Amino acid sequence: MDKDAPKRAARRRFLRAAGSAAAALAGGPALAGNLKNLPPNVPEWTRALGDGVAVRPYGKPSKHEAHVVRRDVQWLTASRESSVSFTPLHELDGIITPNGLCFERHHGGIAEIDPEDYRLIVHGLVERELIFTLADLKRFPRVNRIHFLECAANSGMEWRGAQLNGCQYTHGMVHCVEYTGVPLRVLLAEAGVKPNAKWLLAEGADSAAMSRSIPLAKAMDDCLVAYRMNGEMLRPEQGYPARLVVPGWEGNVWVKWLRRLKLGDEPWFAREETSKYTDLMADGKARQFTFVMDAKSVITSPSPQAPLRQKGFTVISGLAWSGRGKITRVDVSLDGGKNWREAKIDGLVLDKACVRFYAETEWTGGEMLLQSRAIDETGYVQPTKSELRKIRGVNSIYHNNGIQTWLVKPNGEVENVEVS
Amino acid sequence: MDKDAPKRAARRRFLRAAGSAAAALAGGPALAGNLKNLPPNVPEWTRALGDGVAVRPYGKPSKHEAHVVRRDVQWLTASRESSVSFTPLHELDGIITPNGLCFERHHGGIAEIDPEDYRLIVHGLVERELIFTLADLKRFPRVNRIHFLECAANSGMEWRGAQLNGCQYTHGMVHCVEYTGVPLRVLLAEAGVKPNAKWLLAEGADSAAMSRSIPLAKAMDDCLVAYRMNGEMLRPEQGYPARLVVPGWEGNVWVKWLRRLKLGDEPWFAREETSKYTDLMADGKARQFTFVMDAKSVITSPSPQAPLRQKGFTVISGLAWSGRGKITRVDVSLDGGKNWREAKIDGLVLDKACVRFYAETEWTGGEMLLQSRAIDETGYVQPTKSELRKIRGVNSIYHNNGIQTWLVKPNGEVENVEVS
Repeated sequence: MDKDAPKRAARRRFLRAAGSAAAALAGGPALAGNLKNLPPNVPEWTRALGDGVAVRPYGKPSKHEAHVVRRDVQWLTASRESSVSFTPLHELDGIITPNGLCFERHHGGIAEIDPEDYRLIVHGLVERELIFTLADLKRFPRVNRIHFLECAANSGMEWRGAQLNGCQYTHGMVHCVEYTGVPLRVLLAEAGVKPNAKWLLAEGADSAAMSRSIPLAKAMDDCLVAYRMNGEMLRPEQGYPARLVVPGWEGNVWVKWLRRLKLGDEPWFAREETSKYTDLMADGKARQFTFVMDAKSVITSPSPQAPLRQKGFTVISGLAWSGRGKITRVDVSLDGGKNWREAKIDGLVLDKACVRFYAETEWTGGEMLLQSRAIDETGYVQPTKSELRKIRGVNSIYHNNGIQTWLVKPNGEVENVEVS
Repeated sequence: MDKDAPKRAARRRFLRAAGSAAAALAGGPALAGNLKNLPPNVPEWTRALGDGVAVRPYGKPSKHEAHVVRRDVQWLTASRESSVSFTPLHELDGIITPNGLCFERHHGGIAEIDPEDYRLIVHGLVERELIFTLADLKRFPRVNRIHFLECAANSGMEWRGAQLNGCQYTHGMVHCVEYTGVPLRVLLAEAGVKPNAKWLLAEGADSAAMSRSIPLAKAMDDCLVAYRMNGEMLRPEQGYPARLVVPGWEGNVWVKWLRRLKLGDEPWFAREETSKYTDLMADGKARQFTFVMDAKSVITSPSPQAPLRQKGFTVISGLAWSGRGKITRVDVSLDGGKNWREAKIDGLVLDKACVRFYAETEWTGGEMLLQSRAIDETGYVQPTKSELRKIRGVNSIYHNNGIQTWLVKPNGEVENVEVS
């Protein structure tokens, strides 16, 4: 088949369909959507003087967007201090996540740190033990990098089958922002890393003292001690005033409220890398230190929380990301993986960052089984869930990057399903 | 002189200075900054269980960052409904502006639009007059672009000399976000543009019915009807639910609360392009339709609101942008323009978007006259204020892209000055 044919056909369909989706001013075809037959005159809000400047010195969304919020699932965890709230992926577009909607994952609640009293300690196998204040960190040369952050447990409930209905819950433990921070290797060079140092312990100042071991090679590569996200200081729930940024690796190692970096010659086997954040295999053995988040994608619209409301021209939209580098291609299927078409990636394609993809179709009201699969610059292809289970079994919680399936029903509702 | 020498020297100095800026754990040199001699033990916030997830379904900054807000200058305008609040550039880094801190400029306050009742009318010299709902707009193919938005009046108070003390006020009518929207040419193609159409009128639904004429060639090039910024829906003060994005052109033509697009064969000479947003020259004539924002830059730190607090290694940081394409180079001077060094541009360099630049120096406590100058891909070099005045006189308000000078005093305070 001519590989460009679907694209051209979709374009033709789009132009026809969109023509019917807009109402002519006088006597034209009725808008297929929710046109209320307002006359084309001056709307009520033009007759009133609005709020002046700086009524909100720090702005917030329209009251009409009050439904666009992080949400938690209360039965998922025993307490809200050690729990998750999810990014509303179905309500977003582009690649940047606004700071107020970045998902949260805490192990002992949000540490409330006075920035004047913040300290970062560097010790262990170093030439000089050091303590940095926040003012010290801000004096260093810094860099700006856009990266995704995904929790290792994202999609973790889906190992044994489709569970949660909505991409906010199945895939919403991911966000993507611009970080500003000091390269970790610059701080470590200040302390002087001893030749026998091979691992780094990063410890948070939260009540869980969240601690993770990171190989020194990664620490010296592209990690940052970040204090800003999307220009402003980190939000409290994202580790204010400073966190580790570990590009492409599971979110758990991006230690928040960072208070301590210890150099050592072996990993520490901390609580969160033994009891949790290991991959329990079918034979009962657990894999440790599976840090990298493999290529993954999800269709964010349509999806269970963003049903189809109208037949005709439809843009399918989603996000893809890979912890191993850049996304090079995203494919979309409308029939549960039997046939695939290449999606269009629009906007920035950056190393270890989300990309936005779109695929156009004409929805005639039939059932669709929507899927997306991401391919990264290493050639890795996002696997199906059954391919993943053949290797990993179903005991695990972490690193589920299997292809997601959404069933679009004739009434436009969308459901989380699996195809065999 | 070896052109890399200053850079290498700064690096050597940095390593020495930063070594002295961090305290050794036991008995080492005292931190030159504000170390409070806390022992390296468990801080108070680690002993308390913090707030759980979704305590704030839509997040906000730390209470310790409450000073990072948009600010207005009340004597600047007769009313706050037709006024400005400024982006706190001195408190930001990177290139993305968080939505809550994007400057505001209103002519009749913030229109409060119910998205269900929102309509966009396309009429005039078109084949088919159309009305789009917001749902219609969201069904179209869309694109994602990061662009700066600068008000034509940014730095407008500085024509007759240094006036406002702080880059928030002198340069804070600029922000840079990721927009998601429909290419304007796609919407216009739906309506069918008649061959004799040469101009487009864009009208807002605010009480000022803010209207501007835009040449059709620009409308068909890179303009968007945008409904999202940094992933989420536009903020009310930024035109919720839809605004025009006119990359590289003065902010006034980026019509907010967009309600009407009319095609015509000549400009409309609307109020805001005759009484205002024209450039009054020395001879009393006014230039009209000077849309493009020429290359410009400003040092955001140090600056009057971000004084130097410590001698030694210092990172000078700033923003640069050009309405004619990409920034290719930024130079920094420490002596009021006598000598220049090339700054480091870090992070993304995008078409008609802000770039972040840094220059490192060793501040010994002497006076500095800090300047930056931007150069774009057309070869245009940001002019000095006196070069600008030779051509433009001092009668204008708009399009002041002259080089800014900050005087750093021995006590670290910074003042807005001019050098002759």
